[in-house]
Amino acid sequence: MPELRRDPVVGYWTIISTERGRRPVEYRPRQSQSETHECPFCEGYEAMTTTEITSIRRSGTKKDAPGWEVRTILSKVPILSNLKPQIDRYGIGLYDVMDGVGQHEIIIESPKHKHDLDELSIPEIEKVVRMYVSRFTELERDDRFEYSLLFKNHGHVSGAPQDIVRHSRSQLISMPVTPKRIKEELLSCKMHFEKHQRCVFCDILRQERKEDSRIVAENDSFFCFCPFASRSPFEMWIVPKKHAADFGRLPESDFAGFAEILKTSLAKLRILLEDPPFNFILHTAPYRHSSIESRWQGLEHYYHWFLQISPRMTRSAGFEWGTGIHINPTPPEDAAYLLRQVDGHPHPQEHSHAPVS
Amino acid sequence: MPELRRDPVVGYWTIISTERGRRPVEYRPRQSQSETHECPFCEGYEAMTTTEITSIRRSGTKKDAPGWEVRTILSKVPILSNLKPQIDRYGIGLYDVMDGVGQHEIIIESPKHKHDLDELSIPEIEKVVRMYVSRFTELERDDRFEYSLLFKNHGHVSGAPQDIVRHSRSQLISMPVTPKRIKEELLSCKMHFEKHQRCVFCDILRQERKEDSRIVAENDSFFCFCPFASRSPFEMWIVPKKHAADFGRLPESDFAGFAEILKTSLAKLRILLEDPPFNFILHTAPYRHSSIESRWQGLEHYYHWFLQISPRMTRSAGFEWGTGIHINPTPPEDAAYLLRQVDGHPHPQEHSHAPVS
Repeated sequence: MPELRRDPVVGYWTIISTERGRRPVEYRPRQSQSETHECPFCEGYEAMTTTEITSIRRSGTKKDAPGWEVRTILSKVPILSNLKPQIDRYGIGLYDVMDGVGQHEIIIESPKHKHDLDELSIPEIEKVVRMYVSRFTELERDDRFEYSLLFKNHGHVSGAPQDIVRHSRSQLISMPVTPKRIKEELLSCKMHFEKHQRCVFCDILRQERKEDSRIVAENDSFFCFCPFASRSPFEMWIVPKKHAADFGRLPESDFAGFAEILKTSLAKLRILLEDPPFNFILHTAPYRHSSIESRWQGLEHYYHWFLQISPRMTRSAGFEWGTGIHINPTPPEDAAYLLRQVDGHPHPQEHSHAPVS
Repeated sequence: MPELRRDPVVGYWTIISTERGRRPVEYRPRQSQSETHECPFCEGYEAMTTTEITSIRRSGTKKDAPGWEVRTILSKVPILSNLKPQIDRYGIGLYDVMDGVGQHEIIIESPKHKHDLDELSIPEIEKVVRMYVSRFTELERDDRFEYSLLFKNHGHVSGAPQDIVRHSRSQLISMPVTPKRIKEELLSCKMHFEKHQRCVFCDILRQERKEDSRIVAENDSFFCFCPFASRSPFEMWIVPKKHAADFGRLPESDFAGFAEILKTSLAKLRILLEDPPFNFILHTAPYRHSSIESRWQGLEHYYHWFLQISPRMTRSAGFEWGTGIHINPTPPEDAAYLLRQVDGHPHPQEHSHAPVS
């Protein structure tokens, strides 16, 4: 069972694998393996993975067998363990510890051996979005979990050793704490709301539309732009135009719109930067935020979910690590200008992006 | 002039190089260059660097000429610019901007082409420590600066492109804001002090001594241990035993002790992990913290400076980026045990580390 340990100085949590500590020799760079033809995430190789949690599949086909379109499994190397039904929390003097309970799922986005999410069609990505939303709401029922983090590691620099398998997938980790970064956002958004009676993200969207210098793409329901203080070159945020705090409550009518803007944004990134490594991370409301005793009560008014896409073009060094201040050599205005030039939607019939007014 | 831009959601600052945005093509991996014999940081090659700011050198030798032992120059690729005598700060709607004013110095630790700080003798490292302290106090006089960050990027993964030159050096960046990470530490330490009337670091040292499972090394004045919630495998903190908030006030009588523990800790790391990439970062008090109007007044009681040494053995991916929660596969107890076994001080006459009682 991994442990969650809290730093007594600043209060960050770290996940410590106490069972099987990695020895120094295990950190040495491994021989780079060539990709095998037996990708465990491809249709027909279901037996190579853990048991299916759920899938979107053709009727009449069976669990853990071909016929699926999107498939969710447990990670073989989970960051947190779902083995314990409840969570022990205790102190050791100054230090706080908690069982590393959680659920770490892999969402395989296509039965075909695709490397990029944006290679899929909009209806296919729509099914991936449907799966995201259904996992969010399903895991909300588990009382042990306070937050679910949906993210993607794409390409070598951005991720884990298993990235050697180039099959497009996302990860979802449900955990017993709300991450510090999300808490900070919630607190800041609350303060902005208390002062102005407005959501800060809605304010940002208004200002971005007015300034018209950092917009990358938009459709009826979503807006994609490079944020003013972009921490990485070509960083993009996809934000719903209509105020909404909780990704898990995304209405079905918005699935296609989200799929479309996701495809467009990722395609632009891939084409402009020649398939760069990137991460995307969904920032959304923690679970049970609207209950009366929750410290986040009222969050539906002041918080606004968004997807952060961060290309990994630069390496962070001592300065970033020590200060939290990132150095971005490409101003977001330049990044957005270049991304706008790229046709992220190379299907003639879908070529109808209205210019931003 | 670089810009410091503030994110309106959480409030982090980003340094944006607005003058000469890097274009996509410039992010492509470069040909790895082989090391040349003309290292600009070696004695005799002073003309290859910017003008010397200061140095510790043999009497009778001249500025920008051989004869130095530790030499400080301005960075050729400064993160912040020292060209403007004052700092403009302004808002653009929701967004805050500040001139990226600062001073970015390189401290060359040896005239010889050494790769590692721990290859130097203790008297040599003592001179490096003397240079650190003198730069801290010198830069404190500049009213534009609120904080000086001293750090080191060692090895390829940990740092910047210029790491291709394997000549041991540190960097010091003075800046007009106190980094968010340091502010968080100061606030937490203040809260701990208000509650307990004790410094949290002094409490940590007491508990580490008692638990005796994460100690790496100690001498009369300093303690080196793997912190309880280590964010990276083999992370170490060097902490002065006697409460002190401000590295710039390090008494001369402690220079040798700090040099000794630094050499020991870095040597242990290098030997155990075969010269891993690492960063070290000094956490210390911001400038002018004791003035009456300062929000950090009284900090000398509640804050405690320390040096954080973070080997870069793992790559951070979407999960760490999204949550701020790091995953550490080596428990700090195992790391400290392994580091203790290594002789970090292979000079017989100095072999007198008392066991921790």
